[in-house]
Amino acid sequence: MLNKIPEWLKSASKDDIVISSRVRLARNIKGFLFPSSASPEELLKIYYRIEDAIKSIDVLNGMISLPSWELDEIGKKFLIERHLTSFDLFKKDKGSGVLFDESERISIMINEEDHIRIQCIYEDFKIEEAFIKILEIDDEIGSILTYSYKESLGFITSCPTNLGTGFRASVLLHVPALFITGKIEEVLKDTISEGIIIRGYYGEGSEIVGNILQCSTSSSLGKSEEEIIEDFKSKIYKIIEMEKKERKELIEKKHTLLEDKVYRAYGILKNARKLSSFETMELISGIRLGINLGIFKNINYSLLNEIMIFQQPAHLQYKFERVLNQEERDYLRSFYIRKKLEEIGI
Amino acid sequence: MLNKIPEWLKSASKDDIVISSRVRLARNIKGFLFPSSASPEELLKIYYRIEDAIKSIDVLNGMISLPSWELDEIGKKFLIERHLTSFDLFKKDKGSGVLFDESERISIMINEEDHIRIQCIYEDFKIEEAFIKILEIDDEIGSILTYSYKESLGFITSCPTNLGTGFRASVLLHVPALFITGKIEEVLKDTISEGIIIRGYYGEGSEIVGNILQCSTSSSLGKSEEEIIEDFKSKIYKIIEMEKKERKELIEKKHTLLEDKVYRAYGILKNARKLSSFETMELISGIRLGINLGIFKNINYSLLNEIMIFQQPAHLQYKFERVLNQEERDYLRSFYIRKKLEEIGI
Repeated sequence: MLNKIPEWLKSASKDDIVISSRVRLARNIKGFLFPSSASPEELLKIYYRIEDAIKSIDVLNGMISLPSWELDEIGKKFLIERHLTSFDLFKKDKGSGVLFDESERISIMINEEDHIRIQCIYEDFKIEEAFIKILEIDDEIGSILTYSYKESLGFITSCPTNLGTGFRASVLLHVPALFITGKIEEVLKDTISEGIIIRGYYGEGSEIVGNILQCSTSSSLGKSEEEIIEDFKSKIYKIIEMEKKERKELIEKKHTLLEDKVYRAYGILKNARKLSSFETMELISGIRLGINLGIFKNINYSLLNEIMIFQQPAHLQYKFERVLNQEERDYLRSFYIRKKLEEIGI
Repeated sequence: MLNKIPEWLKSASKDDIVISSRVRLARNIKGFLFPSSASPEELLKIYYRIEDAIKSIDVLNGMISLPSWELDEIGKKFLIERHLTSFDLFKKDKGSGVLFDESERISIMINEEDHIRIQCIYEDFKIEEAFIKILEIDDEIGSILTYSYKESLGFITSCPTNLGTGFRASVLLHVPALFITGKIEEVLKDTISEGIIIRGYYGEGSEIVGNILQCSTSSSLGKSEEEIIEDFKSKIYKIIEMEKKERKELIEKKHTLLEDKVYRAYGILKNARKLSSFETMELISGIRLGINLGIFKNINYSLLNEIMIFQQPAHLQYKFERVLNQEERDYLRSFYIRKKLEEIGI
């Protein structure tokens, strides 16, 4: 895991816009308080109950289990950087944790906001594949544990926005043209008014970096998962079309501006001796666009995603097997990227 | 001339701080009004009188004569970019112009602020060489034309600050470390209070670009030229020492920051598809520093100065034999620089 990239970042697409697709289900176990109200002892009891259940399920065979109390700060950050857990999971001292499979498509957080948060992530716009997988896992867990469920409300969740199906879908979208032309403001306004939540690369509470939006569904009450997905997809297609339209216009009318952004990103990544994670994400966006425009031939989205994942602070510290301060990280990040681009041959 | 660099930019120094050294003398011809008061007819009369005198002098044999009324806008800008004339020379419609020799070390402006402005520029800190040369030229011209001169005041000039010797010395200084550490504010304050005038790369009225200061003497009354030069040199050495001190500290304590600046400049110059003249000057400063730090081996200051000269707007338009708008210039500037760096092999 420390040296490979998650399956959901191994893109097979020719398109750079939809990076990945994610679904999640929120579930709670009947007879227990929500994590926010449960005592430390009860949290642990819940934790082990769920862990045991998961470990007994054949299709979830080989899941890696990481209780948060066994993780140091860098370990926690590493899991967040890999999108296996949320920031919130580690707010509690004890009783929370995560299980995930080797491919990292499946992760199950225990005692985050709800007792169980199942997540499936797939590369590109494979949201149906993710959905099929998550239903299978949900059925299996639900056959062992009794979920909190009311006929009138559906699945009971800690936060009312998750009531009903407890379902949420999201995608990571790379939309540089919308940012370059400034059209993003309009898109964000429209999208938000249509009930899509926009966040940064790391989800809730994170800022937008590298021209990447995390777009997700909001309310899950009163609709089936299938309906939510269909509705969500059509809204995402609208953003994709907007990005493509702006990109086409830029290619036609401001080709030099676009090329300049791409080549500068390349020139800086190849030469800088200090790179912050934020700047790196911006520059990676330039390379991603350059692959799409056919400027870079030797690099594909998967290789680029590898750099995107491993340039992150906790990943860098695992790679260099040291606790690093910011200055050291910025230098070693630039070092790692230079070597990687050399290795790739661009 | 269109394809070569002036001799004064052919550096032989290992040091990058003093780019060039310049002296000038202001002279007026007895019996004529100052250019600001003279009628168009009188200006022309002065112009031809001086031109004839210069052309009759053996040591000034082969001077190229360019009356301003025979120049188009790009031609005028070209001469300013080459530091052969001031902006002010072209303020009048008729009766002004410039003569200069092939090496471009010597230039004589006619009817700028004074009837005659003799300029000698040498590379590096060769201010004495420039001074010896200018005295020779001044003697020759003074033996043919009668200068306005009063025993009590010395040479009479249009502006009182030039009274006396009519002499001014200046240097172009490259001081990136002072800008990086912010020490420049202090240096500017001290230097100005010591009677040194600080301007940008293009002299009077120009902003500071590329970490280059034009430092020049102010008043020239009551002191001999030799005294002015000695005093000036000692003040310039102080700035040089400050720059060296800051640079040494940066090398010791912020080596990565310094390297990062140098390599980024290189990465951008090598890859950008749009470069403004201002940004290019900033980036060239990074390369200049890189040569000094031993980072770039294949390029020397003269080659870099060639890029600095030819990247300028009017030079670019001569090179590509077209009137170019800004967008075209920015693209072709990046094109020219990429090819040039490729050719050099860095």
